[in-house]
Amino acid sequence: MDVFEALYTTRAMRRVSEDPIPEDILKQMVDAGIRAPSGSNRQGWKFIVVTDQKIKNQLGDSYREAWDFYVKEFYGGSADMGASNVPNDEKAEQVVRISKSAAWLSENFHKVPAMFVVLSRNDPTGSSIYPAIWSIMLAGRAHGIGTCLTTVLGMFKPEKAFEILNIPNDKGWKIDAVITAGYPLGKWGVADRNPVDEVTYLNTWGNETNWNLENPLWSY
Amino acid sequence: MDVFEALYTTRAMRRVSEDPIPEDILKQMVDAGIRAPSGSNRQGWKFIVVTDQKIKNQLGDSYREAWDFYVKEFYGGSADMGASNVPNDEKAEQVVRISKSAAWLSENFHKVPAMFVVLSRNDPTGSSIYPAIWSIMLAGRAHGIGTCLTTVLGMFKPEKAFEILNIPNDKGWKIDAVITAGYPLGKWGVADRNPVDEVTYLNTWGNETNWNLENPLWSY
Repeated sequence: MDVFEALYTTRAMRRVSEDPIPEDILKQMVDAGIRAPSGSNRQGWKFIVVTDQKIKNQLGDSYREAWDFYVKEFYGGSADMGASNVPNDEKAEQVVRISKSAAWLSENFHKVPAMFVVLSRNDPTGSSIYPAIWSIMLAGRAHGIGTCLTTVLGMFKPEKAFEILNIPNDKGWKIDAVITAGYPLGKWGVADRNPVDEVTYLNTWGNETNWNLENPLWSY
Repeated sequence: MDVFEALYTTRAMRRVSEDPIPEDILKQMVDAGIRAPSGSNRQGWKFIVVTDQKIKNQLGDSYREAWDFYVKEFYGGSADMGASNVPNDEKAEQVVRISKSAAWLSENFHKVPAMFVVLSRNDPTGSSIYPAIWSIMLAGRAHGIGTCLTTVLGMFKPEKAFEILNIPNDKGWKIDAVITAGYPLGKWGVADRNPVDEVTYLNTWGNETNWNLENPLWSY
């Protein structure tokens, strides 16, 4: 697959089928992840690949608790995640669509065929792990695997997840993300985005670029 | 370019030539970045592309201050970034090599032809921006552009950078990263990494996978 196809079409794919992912593909996804650079090449990371149904059920329960807490904390419990506060109808519709898809993932978390629990330590920047995370997701895309990056479990229910996964809690590890993975129920496509010239300045803030790309580098 | 070539060979390329990068490529790098998913598709991001020499000189001065502070804070001022504390000779050599390369970047920061200053806001997770950052770097790789992800400027000298770049400081923006970019002085290659089976467990911590990839998916 062309790198631009991967970069343009790897969206958050929350709705996936229960079909298992071959071990060879899971392995290749991790192998692509560890090629990413990390600060000073520390590679202070571990990956727990979860496919066992019992463990997935337990993580699913924790995820739902964490997700409910997140929605309550940041959206005041509003099931539409604040869509009613979005002034523009089109955007509000998108927020509703995403919140439904996120709710689907929360309800079906335990049915996703594989999860990559990503841990890191000894990173003064806190961000060194993310190239590896995004590489795992892009490598999944190249194999037709849809993924979704979730961070709520590590943020709001880490102690429960540590217990379920038997992670030592005295070695400085933290859960940065859980990547869900499976064959998508929906279609791949290039997502709508606010265009480059709306989000880019040249040299200083406010200095518009007029950088319009008439055609995206990839479309179907 | 094949997606796996990009994923396997995009290393931190700190040493780059002063040759300018065509605007079309800079634009395409940002366009690849904005295709990445962000939490709830918020796209709470801005990119300032810096090519002006005066601004680069000012950012270079700030970067050096931030870098010196970082080395002092986290490595007690040791110029080898702690290599003398690394038990294994081969690893210590690598740490010295990286610290020299990092010192090169600090000294030559203002000579790098282009920098992407990446800002975000309204992200409860703090990590939503990193897929876009890594996509910019992978898109650069596809065009033969070497990049390096640096976070010290936003961590240790944000107020100075805000002043130089004229960024409003009452709108909730923060600088997540500065990506340096230029044509590499070194060669592309697959970096040595601790292999998958050393950093991956199956289902629970400590449950070894024996996931050896006999051949990497990409090599030269």
